[in-house]
Amino acid sequence: MSTQDYMKQLGQQARQAARAMAAATTADKNAALQAMAAALAADREGLKAANAQDLERGRANGLDHAMLDRLALTDARIDSMIEGLQQVSALADPVGEITDMRYRPSGIQVGHMRVPLGVIGIIYESRPNVTVDAASLCLKAGNAAILRGGSESIESNRRIAQAVRAGLAHARLPADAVQVVDTTDRAAVGALISMPEYVDVIIPRGGKSLIERITAEARVPVIKHLDGICHVYIDDRADIAKAHRIALNAKTHRYGVCNAMETLLVAEAIAADVLPALADAYRDKGVELRGCPKTCALLKGVAAATEADWATEYLAAILSIRIVAGMDEAIAHIEQYGSHHTDSIVTEDYTRARQFLREVDSSSVMVNASTRFADGFEYGLGAEIGISTDKLHARGPVGLEGLTTRKFVVLGDGHIRE
Amino acid sequence: MSTQDYMKQLGQQARQAARAMAAATTADKNAALQAMAAALAADREGLKAANAQDLERGRANGLDHAMLDRLALTDARIDSMIEGLQQVSALADPVGEITDMRYRPSGIQVGHMRVPLGVIGIIYESRPNVTVDAASLCLKAGNAAILRGGSESIESNRRIAQAVRAGLAHARLPADAVQVVDTTDRAAVGALISMPEYVDVIIPRGGKSLIERITAEARVPVIKHLDGICHVYIDDRADIAKAHRIALNAKTHRYGVCNAMETLLVAEAIAADVLPALADAYRDKGVELRGCPKTCALLKGVAAATEADWATEYLAAILSIRIVAGMDEAIAHIEQYGSHHTDSIVTEDYTRARQFLREVDSSSVMVNASTRFADGFEYGLGAEIGISTDKLHARGPVGLEGLTTRKFVVLGDGHIRE
Repeated sequence: MSTQDYMKQLGQQARQAARAMAAATTADKNAALQAMAAALAADREGLKAANAQDLERGRANGLDHAMLDRLALTDARIDSMIEGLQQVSALADPVGEITDMRYRPSGIQVGHMRVPLGVIGIIYESRPNVTVDAASLCLKAGNAAILRGGSESIESNRRIAQAVRAGLAHARLPADAVQVVDTTDRAAVGALISMPEYVDVIIPRGGKSLIERITAEARVPVIKHLDGICHVYIDDRADIAKAHRIALNAKTHRYGVCNAMETLLVAEAIAADVLPALADAYRDKGVELRGCPKTCALLKGVAAATEADWATEYLAAILSIRIVAGMDEAIAHIEQYGSHHTDSIVTEDYTRARQFLREVDSSSVMVNASTRFADGFEYGLGAEIGISTDKLHARGPVGLEGLTTRKFVVLGDGHIRE
Repeated sequence: MSTQDYMKQLGQQARQAARAMAAATTADKNAALQAMAAALAADREGLKAANAQDLERGRANGLDHAMLDRLALTDARIDSMIEGLQQVSALADPVGEITDMRYRPSGIQVGHMRVPLGVIGIIYESRPNVTVDAASLCLKAGNAAILRGGSESIESNRRIAQAVRAGLAHARLPADAVQVVDTTDRAAVGALISMPEYVDVIIPRGGKSLIERITAEARVPVIKHLDGICHVYIDDRADIAKAHRIALNAKTHRYGVCNAMETLLVAEAIAADVLPALADAYRDKGVELRGCPKTCALLKGVAAATEADWATEYLAAILSIRIVAGMDEAIAHIEQYGSHHTDSIVTEDYTRARQFLREVDSSSVMVNASTRFADGFEYGLGAEIGISTDKLHARGPVGLEGLTTRKFVVLGDGHIRE
């Protein structure tokens, strides 16, 4: 069978399964998740053996250290996959929630019901733990999922797929509710993003080039996660201790994550009070600093930032610093160079806090908090499938709710339109 | 200037205006809407003269009666445009609404703030009243709008644009917050749907072929309104009087609308009790009936429905009727042939009503009510820009809320991630 035909078959099966999944009870979905956890725990050795094959082939193919690290299934990672399934099982079921039921002057009662999206296609790198995360979230939200992980993880994903199928069978849910694409042919991705009749939404996870390619070529709606060029703006009315703590945490808590700060903006009136000590703290952590001319004049040994620096997601121990006249210039900088991901102001000024919250057009806008909080777990979503940098449908961390939609429900008693 | 460059300029100006619009006060937006209404009222004769030019050219170019009717600006239509502006001014401002603010274990407070989408492009037929509707809804929701009406209405739209600009100037809002595309070159549409850097969402209104073309070619997210193949299912536990009333209203209240019923499904056990009188009532209204073999056996003079009938949006005084074994078969029919727009069950059975509401995957699902209620005004949205048949973002009638999105807001007191 051609890859095209194979993907079409997966699509048809998923569409079929989606109808049963939308009607599945909360108890059955939870039972499936628990059974998947048990199946993974029982197959720990088999899973590690399959993963060892992937790792061996990966090494032979010259994968770099970071890729091999993401590919590896250690005992700790398997534990965390099992725990993740149990956590998703414990989350409230979003499907069927009815809100806003109101009587209208005509006499009908109108409200919203939360319902699954249908079929979700997820395309991701060679990280087998994502297979379990994505399967569990899609399933709990009542969707059918088609999962396409990186080809380097094919043996691990096949083995995980067995546990997933066992869980579905245990709860008597359709076997095609979660399908793991069983081919390493790259044409599978092209096919998956071109079947609007079978797939309702595509969620790509991975590098920027993959996501940009998928967005450009997809004929199915995409919920995407692009750059995080996040800012902290230290206002001249900031509490200096809070500013120091937040700016340090936002940059140095973790470097390679999308919610890390990449550019620090500081009001001119407070720069001399806050920057020297902060610069020392960054240097202690080994962070390279690049600054605007005013920053370079204030701090010794800071390299000049170029125009490209302001628009770069370093994902590394590098920080660009710019001294601005005040909040308006900070907001303008964020608007021009930011990626609408997460931006925070440090201020004790009520009016400025309110204005920053309203005017900064980012998926997360914060006052006196580290950008590192932009995360589904920290926000109380229970889990996240990603952080959307789109404006439509889901913006910011995407949890179960982002994998659902709402329909109108209307209750009458023989009502007609006059 | 080429059409491409002209559209790019509109896009840049809209992007610039969108930032100011997002920060505009409710009072200023309402003042602009009121001033637009006053400007239209003051320019009634000028508007009618401009419209007369469009009508004359339209007649010379052989537009058909229906197209000329949609193009014409009568006094009643101008009144209704003015009233529409006043109604939108009276609606609650959705922008800035904060919901779900909750403290998290970390100590941060997290919630959602409703914010504008940004720049909205609307592409529609030669119906000048849509220019006013679209402008007012986009403006109230804090967006910048680029409006591209059909080329036959260019003179009317130019004149309306004057009134819109006067209203914006009166409230000191940016002149580019609403831009009417001032060229009849068809390349303008292609350019508008290909500028994701300037346009956040496209809303096409019009015929199916236009919408399909835009959806296929757009590089910007589209909120679209495709077919309404709506069903009423009369369950064998239906109240016959309610069933008669609803089935008659859903088909005959208006024929050319997307929420009119196109196929009637009737449970076999009740068909002989409900269909003969209903068929007489349809015939009295001049509705042509097409039926499945069982329907044709029960009712005299009903033509046989073909497979194509079940998948057709007649938008006319034609109805297809199918007798089904029961609700499961009805739901399967709706799933196979429907367009996920609006479907209604008539039943007195609690369990079936509940199951139908949950399992039918349409933007509006009803119990004992006419499909004709699927409408923004009837649902209490105040006004609607269209009825979305998409699943993501906005589903069903789209009002002000559908023209906005939500961002996360986080309030802390120096909180950092440990």
